Amino acid sequence: MVVTDPDILGAYRQDRALDPDAGIALALVRPNTTEQVSAVVRWAHERRVPIVPRGAGTGLSGGATAQHGALLLSTEKMREISVDTVTRTAVVQPGLLNAEVKRAVAAHGLWYPPDPSSFEICSIGGNAATNAGGLCCVKYGVTTDYVLGMEVVLADGTAVRLGGPRLKDSAGLSLTKLFVGSEGTLGIITELTLRLLPAQPPQSTVVATFPTVTAATDAILAITGALRPSMLEFMDSVAINAVEDELRMGLDREAAGLLVARSDAPGEHAGHEADLMLAACEKAGATEAFRTDDEQEGEAFCAARRFAIPAVERKGPLLLEDVGVPLPRLGDLVTGIAEIARTRDVLISVIAHAGDGNTHPLIVHDPNNPDESERAHLAFGEIMDLAISLGGTITGEHGVGRLKKAWLPDQLGPDVMTLTRRIKDALDPHGILNPGAVL
Amino acid sequence: MVVTDPDILGAYRQDRALDPDAGIALALVRPNTTEQVSAVVRWAHERRVPIVPRGAGTGLSGGATAQHGALLLSTEKMREISVDTVTRTAVVQPGLLNAEVKRAVAAHGLWYPPDPSSFEICSIGGNAATNAGGLCCVKYGVTTDYVLGMEVVLADGTAVRLGGPRLKDSAGLSLTKLFVGSEGTLGIITELTLRLLPAQPPQSTVVATFPTVTAATDAILAITGALRPSMLEFMDSVAINAVEDELRMGLDREAAGLLVARSDAPGEHAGHEADLMLAACEKAGATEAFRTDDEQEGEAFCAARRFAIPAVERKGPLLLEDVGVPLPRLGDLVTGIAEIARTRDVLISVIAHAGDGNTHPLIVHDPNNPDESERAHLAFGEIMDLAISLGGTITGEHGVGRLKKAWLPDQLGPDVMTLTRRIKDALDPHGILNPGAVL
Repeated sequence: MVVTDPDILGAYRQDRALDPDAGIALALVRPNTTEQVSAVVRWAHERRVPIVPRGAGTGLSGGATAQHGALLLSTEKMREISVDTVTRTAVVQPGLLNAEVKRAVAAHGLWYPPDPSSFEICSIGGNAATNAGGLCCVKYGVTTDYVLGMEVVLADGTAVRLGGPRLKDSAGLSLTKLFVGSEGTLGIITELTLRLLPAQPPQSTVVATFPTVTAATDAILAITGALRPSMLEFMDSVAINAVEDELRMGLDREAAGLLVARSDAPGEHAGHEADLMLAACEKAGATEAFRTDDEQEGEAFCAARRFAIPAVERKGPLLLEDVGVPLPRLGDLVTGIAEIARTRDVLISVIAHAGDGNTHPLIVHDPNNPDESERAHLAFGEIMDLAISLGGTITGEHGVGRLKKAWLPDQLGPDVMTLTRRIKDALDPHGILNPGAVL
Repeated sequence: MVVTDPDILGAYRQDRALDPDAGIALALVRPNTTEQVSAVVRWAHERRVPIVPRGAGTGLSGGATAQHGALLLSTEKMREISVDTVTRTAVVQPGLLNAEVKRAVAAHGLWYPPDPSSFEICSIGGNAATNAGGLCCVKYGVTTDYVLGMEVVLADGTAVRLGGPRLKDSAGLSLTKLFVGSEGTLGIITELTLRLLPAQPPQSTVVATFPTVTAATDAILAITGALRPSMLEFMDSVAINAVEDELRMGLDREAAGLLVARSDAPGEHAGHEADLMLAACEKAGATEAFRTDDEQEGEAFCAARRFAIPAVERKGPLLLEDVGVPLPRLGDLVTGIAEIARTRDVLISVIAHAGDGNTHPLIVHDPNNPDESERAHLAFGEIMDLAISLGGTITGEHGVGRLKKAWLPDQLGPDVMTLTRRIKDALDPHGILNPGAVL
């Protein structure tokens, strides 16, 4: 069970944040059961050996970066699922991929909404650990809204069950919710009870291009002010062209911004809402805007949006941001990012889950060019400073990990940091759980 | 600001749990601002004086019962609200009533969904402190699903801001969610940022009566398995007759159970869903079932359901339960409660937010009849034991308070109690915040 082969350990050294400062781990364990996780943590607890927990390793904030002398605990082999159609819940182990959960529940006519762009490769345990979001969150909320209960192994190896398949439960503290988004710093999630919805109705899709970013953000505010789209995504000019380079879909290369908006209102109401969104885009000055009720055609544009990160990545390694702001400040954020790109002379592409104010500025840089790399990292920090100054967050859905922790005190302030530290110390007094992440 | 008049203190001695063991408080304070709350808590912290926080005093679990020598802190004077239609959020102070929040946001065409039956008299701060539910939760979730941020005064008097008007935020621990449902044991909430929805569409309503409780629970499972009603409420024979005694609506006094089910799907889809629910009721053996699309007529039946508790209360003082079970066990719960009523020879009426498995068994007893009162209290405990044995919770939406805390360890188990205690001790090391509640 315990792997110490340096080649294998090497493959587990980083997550998708590709932190160059990753350490050399002591060993890797890939337990199959909660009991095994408990045994490993108990062993580590007694010897004060740090543990870095890990799902599928697709994290973008370095939450699973290996630390010197730490034990890597991967949940990849914990892959069971059972679906209960009566309570409309699923009990899942953390190693399943998000897409596998979606498929398993879809076989019962049910739907697990949260949909990170990486849903085909990210694990459901990692989703819970980071309180992951996605594209449908603008209407359907984030991971925490779907976690009704869990089994979690605490810092001393004790496994506890929290919550359960009940929509309502006010008995005791909201511990389930505390562990969601704790990035492996308070415990290791070994099972989740997820709330499911009936299958999503067919969606109507609107695609619109805009001559200016301001026109696009005007359309976003008009849409969210009038109704609740099931998706509202933005790509800037750089992203449009990067995607068009790869996919040749006929996207307008001259556009400053592109929106993909969807409605899943029942029956013909999806079309009605799509018409309202179409009109809002036209009124805001769209150069082109069209609606399709064809699921496959709509899905192709969503796939294009999901493909934006890999497409921009062809231009060079990315520093990937996850800043969010209250919706009325979205325009200020996008404008400010363009200003930072100009000042620092780096290429920054902005894509966004526009409907909920969560953006992913992608900073392209050549790590072999020290000057450019330094300017990119300065821009990386300045974008988080900007988001904080606009009343926003340094991370909407990826988590703080190790990459963003230097900025967390600026967002939360000293008193909330003290509060956070108190809870961490109470639950992990020897600091063995994912040390260096978040705090 | 500090009230010590015994007459006034007497009026603040209990909440609606009417705990006869309520103590004599030191004094009452009714601060207007967060700064005043901070000053009071700082004073109490330095002197180790316990504080019992209090909203509108409508709690049913004794969470606001006065303790000997404690300071009562009522948030009733903190009543400001501002609504932001662009982010679709409201910033509210805790002393506003739930109904006042609903009305203020409705003036902007918006909707705050959580709707405890007591919504006209309960405070929004108390709703957050207990993670209150209501009738629409079966589709729209509970209070925590609508709390995006808060200002909370900690045990040493420090005021901290958590979260904010952002649908997505993964920066640091999910502290906002931890304070929701903490019943004043971790901090005193002085401001809430609430997520709002567009105004609820018109609802279609189905009312059905059943010859047996089993037929009614069959209908409930058929309905929730097929769609997501915006309300699905149950009243048993005792409640039907108690309501009919007061309101003379023409309810079927012979029925063993009555369901009120609603759909708020857009446009004519509400009617379609109502037809499906009607058919499910008929198939399950309803003696009578009808649909109405008239809002006022539908609202009259909802009002009847909301009136069930006061109506049954006319028969005598109530011990009010709040047990919930996973939906497939609802029938077992209702049957088991009838068995307890028989064995203990007490009158128990069961009303329920049936669609989410949350029930309110109402135990009628004469407190001046010591024998009956003892049997009622035995039944009260046995119903919680039953809910736990069915994989359920002792409280779905009212909180643990002081009335149910003896049963909390049976539900959570020793390890989760230890975890809870660790968090409590870390955040309130001197135990001054609502001592004796929950823990």
